Amino acid sequence: MRIVVDAMGGDHAPEEIVKGAVAACNEYGADILLVGREEQIKKELDSCGRFPSSKIEIDHAEDVVTMDDSPSMIVRGKRNSSIHTGLKHVKNGNADAFFSAGNTGAVMAVAIMVLRTLPGIDRPAIGAVLPNIKGHTVMLDVGANVDCKPLNYFQFAIMGSVYAQIVLGLPRPSIGLLSIGEEDMKGNETTKSVHTLLRSVGSAINFYGNVEGKDLFRGTTDVVVCDGFSGNVALKVAESAGWYISKMLKEEITSSFWAKAGALMARKALMRVKERADYTEYGGAPLLGVEGVCIIGHGSSNANAVKNGIRVAKELAEHDLNKVIQEKLADSIGVLEVDKDVSFLDNIIGKFKKKNPQAE
Amino acid sequence: MRIVVDAMGGDHAPEEIVKGAVAACNEYGADILLVGREEQIKKELDSCGRFPSSKIEIDHAEDVVTMDDSPSMIVRGKRNSSIHTGLKHVKNGNADAFFSAGNTGAVMAVAIMVLRTLPGIDRPAIGAVLPNIKGHTVMLDVGANVDCKPLNYFQFAIMGSVYAQIVLGLPRPSIGLLSIGEEDMKGNETTKSVHTLLRSVGSAINFYGNVEGKDLFRGTTDVVVCDGFSGNVALKVAESAGWYISKMLKEEITSSFWAKAGALMARKALMRVKERADYTEYGGAPLLGVEGVCIIGHGSSNANAVKNGIRVAKELAEHDLNKVIQEKLADSIGVLEVDKDVSFLDNIIGKFKKKNPQAE
Repeated sequence: MRIVVDAMGGDHAPEEIVKGAVAACNEYGADILLVGREEQIKKELDSCGRFPSSKIEIDHAEDVVTMDDSPSMIVRGKRNSSIHTGLKHVKNGNADAFFSAGNTGAVMAVAIMVLRTLPGIDRPAIGAVLPNIKGHTVMLDVGANVDCKPLNYFQFAIMGSVYAQIVLGLPRPSIGLLSIGEEDMKGNETTKSVHTLLRSVGSAINFYGNVEGKDLFRGTTDVVVCDGFSGNVALKVAESAGWYISKMLKEEITSSFWAKAGALMARKALMRVKERADYTEYGGAPLLGVEGVCIIGHGSSNANAVKNGIRVAKELAEHDLNKVIQEKLADSIGVLEVDKDVSFLDNIIGKFKKKNPQAE
Repeated sequence: MRIVVDAMGGDHAPEEIVKGAVAACNEYGADILLVGREEQIKKELDSCGRFPSSKIEIDHAEDVVTMDDSPSMIVRGKRNSSIHTGLKHVKNGNADAFFSAGNTGAVMAVAIMVLRTLPGIDRPAIGAVLPNIKGHTVMLDVGANVDCKPLNYFQFAIMGSVYAQIVLGLPRPSIGLLSIGEEDMKGNETTKSVHTLLRSVGSAINFYGNVEGKDLFRGTTDVVVCDGFSGNVALKVAESAGWYISKMLKEEITSSFWAKAGALMARKALMRVKERADYTEYGGAPLLGVEGVCIIGHGSSNANAVKNGIRVAKELAEHDLNKVIQEKLADSIGVLEVDKDVSFLDNIIGKFKKKNPQAE
């Protein structure tokens, strides 16, 4: 297993990225290929202490993508960036997965250009793992596609199901469709069509039905599918809720002697709450649906988040994420009882379009 | 000021509704007209202790709307419901505002039928008040319209601005457009058109620009406008985040002696956090854009939430909510420098359609 790491991407690059890569190498035994400006990476490596030097290599890439660069500009203009160079290693079979904490739009655009989408997948999706009261919820899409058609949701359901199988270790994850009411016919025009489609796929996916915003934290389903607009809104509200409550807690606790003393006594319990609500534990969100494994870390990733992101990249590559997605897509044909010689997605699309002419 | 209260709507009706109405009468001096099954209401009133009996009246309504009734069924089938009867009192000028903690879809549908929409407003919106780290955010729409056109958002911005002026006491509330990136051109097809439209209205509204899910808790703007789908998702994620964190806190705090003792010492501080995060303080969400004041309470409203909902109803009626909305709509024409003799909304629509043929 060899993971390519974009050493130049993220608010704390290259320092925290290199530190995280070294930690991942030491802890998980991953081979690392750091891509970016060679001297800067070497300098950081020198201050990283001991690591098996045969397991960490550097590939020089001159261009650096900033957070302000527009995706289209990068795709065309910065062809020697660490993102391009790194993803080409995955494309050429020279590495098994790619990790970057850089500009999300840029990583996405370059990954789609260099790796291409999987057969049967129209649009890739970004998957996120959120903590809930029972464990974790996988949510997708959280920002790759803001305007989605029903078929995109179907593909998200397949990809989300496989992703949850691998990262959460669930044999048959349940899938919820994000809507604004639990009843089947609640939602907007698109989600109503999606509901019909997901019901019609039968047992190929474990479809629970509609879920609401509150079900994310209740853990009603293992996977929640949605368009990238509402998914992104939900993710950012969820992330900032923790920030908001902990900020209030700090304000109120430091306002009196008794509160301060009490908080000190309950310190361990408070820390555990913080850990349980910490979404950075999963270190990054995969871009699902491209030919290869590509993990996008939070721009603010520290060394620990980078280390976890590399672990997830390694896990997805080891479990052959994309092969399983392809098998699951093929499975849904079996259920739909259609001719196996015809492209399976064409079968599903044809069948669904016939039933729902308004959905396309 | 006379407020009509739907005594039969809500999970704890009529008991908590009647108690809340009596409390509102005692505390704010509001005249109350309780609508619903007379004997049941009388029985509850008898156990309510002292109140000025001349200020509380009852109007009998035979039909009771349940939470499971579909809006279309109620509009046609239960014409003697407490919702119909109550709203007719507002329509006929016999009362100044209506409050119900009943079936949201039913209240909305009957309100639109009985009261009609305001001139210049195509679709009413449900407004919600959320706590944030600086104070409060008004968000709309949170569920009345799941598929919105750019012009709906413009009307939401006007209505939200007036609502925030009255309930939050702000002279010139700032308006944010919910999107998935702060940059002007981030978002889906609809929000990009809305952004252009809200910028073109000029100083009639205090438009800040795009905001993200995280800005709700940061209080970046006083008002956040969005379609009813993402607004409902955001509201439910926000509400349940508090539930989730407090559930974890309870679990962790009760897990050890020291944590329990510490929490006891910091009890007051913890209670203040709970109070600050309590969204029921605003007691209900107005259905903005109908000819009259109509407040919809949470189905689980207790007496205190009902009391607060009646207070908000009274405030909005006293401040002549709809007159101010009409004036603000008229203001936007002044800014657009168009002929005052032509219907003002037609002016805005015409101008916007010309610039954005794709938006309609």
